[in-house]
Amino acid sequence: MKAKYPIGILGATGAVGQRYIQLLENHSWFEIVWLAASDRSCGKAYAEAARWRLDTPLPERIARMVVSPAEPPSVSSSAPRIIFSSVDAAIAREMEPRFANAGCAVISNSSAYRMAANVPLVIPEINADHLHLIEDQPSRRDSGGYMVTNPNCSTIGLVLALKPLEERFGMEQIFVTTLQAVSGAGYPGVPSMDILGNVIPYIASEEEKMEAETLKLLGRLESSIAGHSVTPLSARITAHCNRVAVQDGHMESVSVKLGNKLGRFVTREDILAAWAEFRPLAGKDLPSAPDQPIEWAAQPDRPQPRLDRNRGKGMAVTVGRLRPCGVLDWKFTVLSHNTIRGAAGATILNAELLASLGKLEPGRWSGEPAAAAATAHA
Amino acid sequence: MKAKYPIGILGATGAVGQRYIQLLENHSWFEIVWLAASDRSCGKAYAEAARWRLDTPLPERIARMVVSPAEPPSVSSSAPRIIFSSVDAAIAREMEPRFANAGCAVISNSSAYRMAANVPLVIPEINADHLHLIEDQPSRRDSGGYMVTNPNCSTIGLVLALKPLEERFGMEQIFVTTLQAVSGAGYPGVPSMDILGNVIPYIASEEEKMEAETLKLLGRLESSIAGHSVTPLSARITAHCNRVAVQDGHMESVSVKLGNKLGRFVTREDILAAWAEFRPLAGKDLPSAPDQPIEWAAQPDRPQPRLDRNRGKGMAVTVGRLRPCGVLDWKFTVLSHNTIRGAAGATILNAELLASLGKLEPGRWSGEPAAAAATAHA
Amino acid sequence: MKAKYPIGILGATGAVGQRYIQLLENHSWFEIVWLAASDRSCGKAYAEAARWRLDTPLPERIARMVVSPAEPPSVSSSAPRIIFSSVDAAIAREMEPRFANAGCAVISNSSAYRMAANVPLVIPEINADHLHLIEDQPSRRDSGGYMVTNPNCSTIGLVLALKPLEERFGMEQIFVTTLQAVSGAGYPGVPSMDILGNVIPYIASEEEKMEAETLKLLGRLESSIAGHSVTPLSARITAHCNRVAVQDGHMESVSVKLGNKLGRFVTREDILAAWAEFRPLAGKDLPSAPDQPIEWAAQPDRPQPRLDRNRGKGMAVTVGRLRPCGVLDWKFTVLSHNTIRGAAGATILNAELLASLGKLEPGRWSGEPAAAAATAHA
Amino acid sequence: MKAKYPIGILGATGAVGQRYIQLLENHSWFEIVWLAASDRSCGKAYAEAARWRLDTPLPERIARMVVSPAEPPSVSSSAPRIIFSSVDAAIAREMEPRFANAGCAVISNSSAYRMAANVPLVIPEINADHLHLIEDQPSRRDSGGYMVTNPNCSTIGLVLALKPLEERFGMEQIFVTTLQAVSGAGYPGVPSMDILGNVIPYIASEEEKMEAETLKLLGRLESSIAGHSVTPLSARITAHCNRVAVQDGHMESVSVKLGNKLGRFVTREDILAAWAEFRPLAGKDLPSAPDQPIEWAAQPDRPQPRLDRNRGKGMAVTVGRLRPCGVLDWKFTVLSHNTIRGAAGATILNAELLASLGKLEPGRWSGEPAAAAATAHA
Repeated sequence: MKAKYPIGILGATGAVGQRYIQLLENHSWFEIVWLAASDRSCGKAYAEAARWRLDTPLPERIARMVVSPAEPPSVSSSAPRIIFSSVDAAIAREMEPRFANAGCAVISNSSAYRMAANVPLVIPEINADHLHLIEDQPSRRDSGGYMVTNPNCSTIGLVLALKPLEERFGMEQIFVTTLQAVSGAGYPGVPSMDILGNVIPYIASEEEKMEAETLKLLGRLESSIAGHSVTPLSARITAHCNRVAVQDGHMESVSVKLGNKLGRFVTREDILAAWAEFRPLAGKDLPSAPDQPIEWAAQPDRPQPRLDRNRGKGMAVTVGRLRPCGVLDWKFTVLSHNTIRGAAGATILNAELLASLGKLEPGRWSGEPAAAAATAHA
Repeated sequence: MKAKYPIGILGATGAVGQRYIQLLENHSWFEIVWLAASDRSCGKAYAEAARWRLDTPLPERIARMVVSPAEPPSVSSSAPRIIFSSVDAAIAREMEPRFANAGCAVISNSSAYRMAANVPLVIPEINADHLHLIEDQPSRRDSGGYMVTNPNCSTIGLVLALKPLEERFGMEQIFVTTLQAVSGAGYPGVPSMDILGNVIPYIASEEEKMEAETLKLLGRLESSIAGHSVTPLSARITAHCNRVAVQDGHMESVSVKLGNKLGRFVTREDILAAWAEFRPLAGKDLPSAPDQPIEWAAQPDRPQPRLDRNRGKGMAVTVGRLRPCGVLDWKFTVLSHNTIRGAAGATILNAELLASLGKLEPGRWSGEPAAAAATAHA
Repeated sequence: MKAKYPIGILGATGAVGQRYIQLLENHSWFEIVWLAASDRSCGKAYAEAARWRLDTPLPERIARMVVSPAEPPSVSSSAPRIIFSSVDAAIAREMEPRFANAGCAVISNSSAYRMAANVPLVIPEINADHLHLIEDQPSRRDSGGYMVTNPNCSTIGLVLALKPLEERFGMEQIFVTTLQAVSGAGYPGVPSMDILGNVIPYIASEEEKMEAETLKLLGRLESSIAGHSVTPLSARITAHCNRVAVQDGHMESVSVKLGNKLGRFVTREDILAAWAEFRPLAGKDLPSAPDQPIEWAAQPDRPQPRLDRNRGKGMAVTVGRLRPCGVLDWKFTVLSHNTIRGAAGATILNAELLASLGKLEPGRWSGEPAAAAATAHA
Repeated sequence: MKAKYPIGILGATGAVGQRYIQLLENHSWFEIVWLAASDRSCGKAYAEAARWRLDTPLPERIARMVVSPAEPPSVSSSAPRIIFSSVDAAIAREMEPRFANAGCAVISNSSAYRMAANVPLVIPEINADHLHLIEDQPSRRDSGGYMVTNPNCSTIGLVLALKPLEERFGMEQIFVTTLQAVSGAGYPGVPSMDILGNVIPYIASEEEKMEAETLKLLGRLESSIAGHSVTPLSARITAHCNRVAVQDGHMESVSVKLGNKLGRFVTREDILAAWAEFRPLAGKDLPSAPDQPIEWAAQPDRPQPRLDRNRGKGMAVTVGRLRPCGVLDWKFTVLSHNTIRGAAGATILNAELLASLGKLEPGRWSGEPAAAAATAHA
């Protein structure tokens, strides 16, 4: 039995922080050794600092851990160098580079650096090659530390459904309307008086994020002597974002105009095959990767959040209702679990991918102390 | 004080039937004198036959009325010749022509004949001229009776928002995703186990109805010696229909590609002005017509069903969130009250329009008995 | 047409503050002339300071009013001397006496002074005589100012249903379980993640308030040369308070053991008559008093919040399901609108009662300036 | 590896029938071999006949099974003799005795025979000894068949919480108000228009069932030469039953007046200990029995349906908020999963208990064919 990678969590008391804790209990590669949160939580036992909102018990070991200040480790510290981060964008903007500069692998769910030119925005099934951007980050050269991000919760389901189509057929236009769950807004998040029996047709900055992130994720890595860069997909995209009275699970109504890669009309069977055969991580044995990242729901009224969000332990997206579109080519519905596949699980899967690529290994960070190395995985 | 038009209701115990009763209490032109429903309700007092589900009291007079069988009036009957109908399509298909043939004005919310070539599908603000189709109906010539329909609940909000744009700028492509309230499915309708904390991305035949009805409503009446016909608008349209956990009020995320009627780029101000100035019924004094059929909500997170559905007593639609679309030209959100503007109020407003045009008058139906004429309005 | 009483509102931007504004629009006796809220709202137009959450439009006149600091009027100020207050208990504890000492009639929905010995806790139909306590308040003698309170939102429905029974039959034991709406917690109040598809079996201090307030409201005013006091009803009471996913309307399951005033077994008919005949404000013409404060719902599954909360414009409570109790004598269900009858409407009705008793009149407050007197009602 | 008991299911397509299927997938003792439902389902594959509403996949093996008519096995049939039944009371009344007379062990969730004098109403932790009633059933003597029932979904949580208190302290008065989930009404069950943002203070016959079943479950088995009988607990009980907008999980607000068995005042610690130490099935190794049937939630706002209903895989009940009661002695909140512990899981646990007692064994039914015996468990 190998030692596990020691993990630190930034934003441990928040909704995504709680999911990290839930998903990492009994994780075969990772072990939480450090929890950080805002000043008012510091010094308290986690069980006191957090208002645990998940329907599985707070693990006893975590309940007793004392919340640390959100400060990067000093050179000699035994604090972990692998940091899962999910904090507000304004805080992330200031804090994540400090951890990277201190030699940490900052694997983040925060939005602050997703669109930065030298920060990879990655979904392992989609664009693992974008991780080469890490090598261009100044901190990587100086301290070994770097930053990697995963997309917004509403982007991930969309891009997973689009990627196999883009790959086989090309992708020219994308239309998406979201019906997003309240957990996407964190806790306390959406007031009940706003959403009970209601729809809110607005989520601040969400449409802009979905549009920009989708094109970067589907973009092409360019490499030259000067370094790497990502050229976004050249496609038109528009998003309408709505909040609905659902606990977990973002639904999306999608229409697409495909390209001409196939050289002929793209049939329903072509699309179903593209989804069914999309298993780019097969054989990699990443613990959180679902066998089938895109599941097809054959019933006419599926997917539905309550019934389908937990497919693949919340890491599979479900597509359904494929039918011709009167304006573009095809339309369909996609569902993903917004706090698992769309947030905490996304960070963890990115970390698993980085581990499998040797990018979480001891010795790669110049300042890394021996203690951390001793507990590393492989 | 003039006598009121006597009204009969087909499908009086259903969700829309109840709204007819609610909205016609104290109506200045119309008075309910006859209620019909399915066999199991016949002969019972309305209060016994119906499970009243509205939050205003069932009017005492109606509570005591006995439910009649759904049979057309005989020539000598004193039963009303003006029939508001909201029954299942299969029943309407058989029943409504029988009432028209018996000399009744059948003003229907049912879907059965909306797309029939010689049946007008009408929203008074949009296409009152389509009512000329009535004159081509065989029953009109034989008995004076005819059929008029209003659109599906999800179509009405959309078309009201589109019409001023189509009129001024032209309309080439329409993309709409709906988030529809449960009351649209009638009673008992959607099981709570299906919709609590959930979204259902499917409503049978709804997308087809929205697409076809929208183009007919925005179509052009052609008149010739052979009669009238409607040429649907030549535009591309696609609808994604979803059910959400909202009591009343259909929300719609809409993108449009406008035409070139204006001869220049259509600005945000152009669109806001088109909506603000759209008051085609001004001066007609129809009792149920809202002063401002299209209300603009300036706040970034509006309209919302719970807060805005009752604008204009449920007869105004609310538009908001106008912004450029990355795929088509502009995108926005529209809300309408699905059982008032989208159903019962739509029928009533059609009837008011017909009355104002003299098409509910005594003497126009060959078989009409004196009794009915005596109580007529003008 | 008489001048209206000028009203100031403390806590104008909150959920109850908004209801004051909604209910006072077009009120025949009262006119809002002054709005106060917390520091961050001061100096802003009300429309900017408040996030209006009601489904009727924010009145234009109010939208433009500038929010004032929550400071009592100076002697020479023209600020209103009639203050409706709904602020957090901690704030009310400090602030309300300052307004009373400055000569204001503080008519409060806040909980801070409800149980104070010389502050009347009043529901006009129940215990108007408790208003004599005002005369014992030091501020009353010094400046003319005084404090009057209305009960907690969950108490009011219960006590209205109990009073006619207590009066006719006596009341020995009271058991109540509440199912309370989210609006009772104000805005933002209950997070949607906590209540969607859920029940929270706890509302801080609510059970204690219900139990104590009920006994004070049903208590007896004692008068002596030393002043007045209220002896609480001598009965046993227990409350279980739950929060449910309802927008407005508190439901309560109640069992009671009656006393022996009647001298014989109390029948179902006795109780129905007690409720039906309970109209203590008849003839007083208070604008907000419902004709029938206690409405009986005969259907076996009523009252229900969505269908019955607006009876009597939200000022009537609805009782139903009267049946024998296996532990006490009788059990039933009671519903009241928690932000109208249970909060804002309660304050307003108290003010109407005070006006009808001459306790809002000019000249009664020693420091009152001429300006305010000039606009007073009678 | 031992063979499993072959199980047949009556009412296989209903909400509880689906839970049987879900809970028996991979069950170590039981295997479904026969599914029966109403006539319109007969002859169809289960996947066609049922509208699967659970959030785990319908097992493939079950999906393909053909639904049989609900007819008891003939003597020579290989159909299973162990029947789990969950059908409407009217159907159960006629059908269950026919299966018992045909030699089947009918283990039922239906209400038809729960209160019959010679039919045991059993919760294994509470009153396993009541199973002796089986031996008095005529069918037992004639064919070996018999009937056993489990209580109503709202009764089970209550009785589990009460039993340890009744046992140690005695129980004189019981007050309970329920807040029940919609799944308790089956599918389609409660219309969404009735329950969204609402409470329904009525569930037909529920209060009567809760009151009667609770006293029978806590009653004493009397045995004599003439046979067995159950004397209900002599206590006063009253139930208020409400439906709320919760998917799964019945909440109950409970007050109790305890007896004097302890000979002194019962403290909070006494009660907590009674619950904590209540483990009557310890050591019996029944697969569905939770280690801790009564879990204590220490937080002041727990239990909650969404967060706690799945404790003990849905088979544990959670108690919380223990505090003194102003009318009786103590009050608290109890939660149980209504379709697992309160229905399907209750039947299964009864079957496990019967198996452990040798009452599902081959050879005990006179008409049992060899085929069934060959696959039996022990």
